[in-house]
Amino acid sequence: MEVFAVPGLPEIEAGDDVAALIDEQAALRDGDVVCVASTIVSKAEGRAYDLADFEAGHRARAIARRLEGISGDEKDPRFAQAVLEESDELVMTAPFLLTVTRFGHITVNAGIDRSNVPDADLLLLPEDPTASAEAIRQGLSADVSVVVTDTSGRPFRHGQQAVALGWAGMYANRDWRGERDRDGRELGVTVQSVVDELASTANLVTGEGDGGTPVAVVREWEFGDHDGHDLLFRDLESDFVRQALRQWSY
Amino acid sequence: MEVFAVPGLPEIEAGDDVAALIDEQAALRDGDVVCVASTIVSKAEGRAYDLADFEAGHRARAIARRLEGISGDEKDPRFAQAVLEESDELVMTAPFLLTVTRFGHITVNAGIDRSNVPDADLLLLPEDPTASAEAIRQGLSADVSVVVTDTSGRPFRHGQQAVALGWAGMYANRDWRGERDRDGRELGVTVQSVVDELASTANLVTGEGDGGTPVAVVREWEFGDHDGHDLLFRDLESDFVRQALRQWSY
Ligand SMILES: Nc1nc2c(ncn2[C@@H]2O[C@H](COP(=O)(O)OP(=O)(O)O)[C@@H](O)[C@H]2O)c(=O)[nH]1
Ligand SMILES: Nc1nc2c(ncn2[C@@H]2O[C@H](COP(=O)(O)OP(=O)(O)O)[C@@H](O)[C@H]2O)c(=O)[nH]1
Ligand SMILES: [Mn+2]
Ligand SMILES: [Mn+2]
Ligand SMILES: [Mn+2]
Ligand SMILES: [Mn+2]
Repeated sequence: MEVFAVPGLPEIEAGDDVAALIDEQAALRDGDVVCVASTIVSKAEGRAYDLADFEAGHRARAIARRLEGISGDEKDPRFAQAVLEESDELVMTAPFLLTVTRFGHITVNAGIDRSNVPDADLLLLPEDPTASAEAIRQGLSADVSVVVTDTSGRPFRHGQQAVALGWAGMYANRDWRGERDRDGRELGVTVQSVVDELASTANLVTGEGDGGTPVAVVREWEFGDHDGHDLLFRDLESDFVRQALRQWSY
Repeated sequence: MEVFAVPGLPEIEAGDDVAALIDEQAALRDGDVVCVASTIVSKAEGRAYDLADFEAGHRARAIARRLEGISGDEKDPRFAQAVLEESDELVMTAPFLLTVTRFGHITVNAGIDRSNVPDADLLLLPEDPTASAEAIRQGLSADVSVVVTDTSGRPFRHGQQAVALGWAGMYANRDWRGERDRDGRELGVTVQSVVDELASTANLVTGEGDGGTPVAVVREWEFGDHDGHDLLFRDLESDFVRQALRQWSY
């Protein structure tokens, strides 16, 4: 399989047609997986805001005060307000804000970015990244899959890694249930999250900085002859870590 | 960048020289990243065991009884014993065993596998995967990096994904601290776990089943001009999820 960053994309602005811009710069082929950093999807969808756009309520002010006390750094309650408005649930409020976004993804600060956002203070994640992926897919000239990605921290391990927020034209996971290992035993690993693995792959060539390469193409990768399904974000009932964090306090 | 599975590897047995076998099948080049599934590292290092090799103590029997009660399936206390012996700490004992391996990785059942292990009941993870990676690297004819990988579950998200257990010839993480985004602001994302992203990339072509492809090569990927560091597994103090899980009970 081959992986390359799409060169020559401009600074994306609200209303831009991301699919058309990608099509101009890359000779896509049927079967490619096009991985798009959520940052440009958000910009195109007009998700850049200023802090002044958020009016901090009681809860946001209390959260910001607490975080300020812990870190010793000034915390803007309007940022906490933006996180609250993007979230369905607060999983942790200290020593940082970990929340469930409205589309089910668990990440710090609801994934709100302050890097690579000119002329605005904040960039919110796309409202519905799977719908965004589908729209980009429909706009591209080849029959491809699309994965909308974001860089995110994770428990247990230092550092961040790209994950999938939304996807179209493919299943999120390869389901190996019912398949066999080399000795004919049923497999222990049953569900491989290929959209997350594709997001990580793309991030190796897009990077986090000023590279200007928010899109990567994975070519000649095959989902293969496996079952698939689209369940990526755990619900509360099957997520023991979320349950534990809800009861925990810093 | 290019990613391909190394074909033609035999069933690996205790004592096999994994590096020599890889060298025979792949024309490696300087700068390649060679990702090796822990399963064959373990086999080569003689980490296959039978349940009969473990004598279940009190604690293992209690754990197995509890898990049996929860799931309704028979649980062998000798398996619980093997997990205990491979672990420094139990993070959760129910509804499944989540532990910290002796080398610091947090995963279910200390990563003990029951798939792709002929002639034995269990395959333990390598004792020191970074030492294994270094030994393989030394044995290869080109100047490459080596990542020893395993498929592992993760909180918040369904399914499994490959991660790095050990690495050699490269840093675990790209450290972006001090670097700037497109607008000259200091970056929000500071540490990119490239070894985990490489492991995920490799897993897209190796798979989980009877493919017989435990090794993948990532070619023409560049770490680039960034700082690096080798801290991958969080310690307890910086791991709030682990702290919360320790206090939680099912
Ligand atoms: N050409 C172009 N590149 C961008 C733009 N915004 C971000 N990037 C690049 O996209 C890549 C990913 O950016 P990042 O901020 O990490 O995105 P995220 O992971 O989705 O939050 C980096 O190489 C950035 O330089 C943009 O508007 N235009
Ligand atoms: N040639 C060969 N392939 C193997 C062997 N053991 C496992 N595999 C293959 O290696 C890949 C990864 O196997 P898996 O059990 O998922 O490894 P893990 O992720 O390290 O636990 C699959 O394609 C297996 O078929 C072996 O001894 N020889
Ligand atoms: Mn982001
Ligand atoms: Mn990023
Ligand atoms: Mn394994
Ligand atoms: Mn695997």
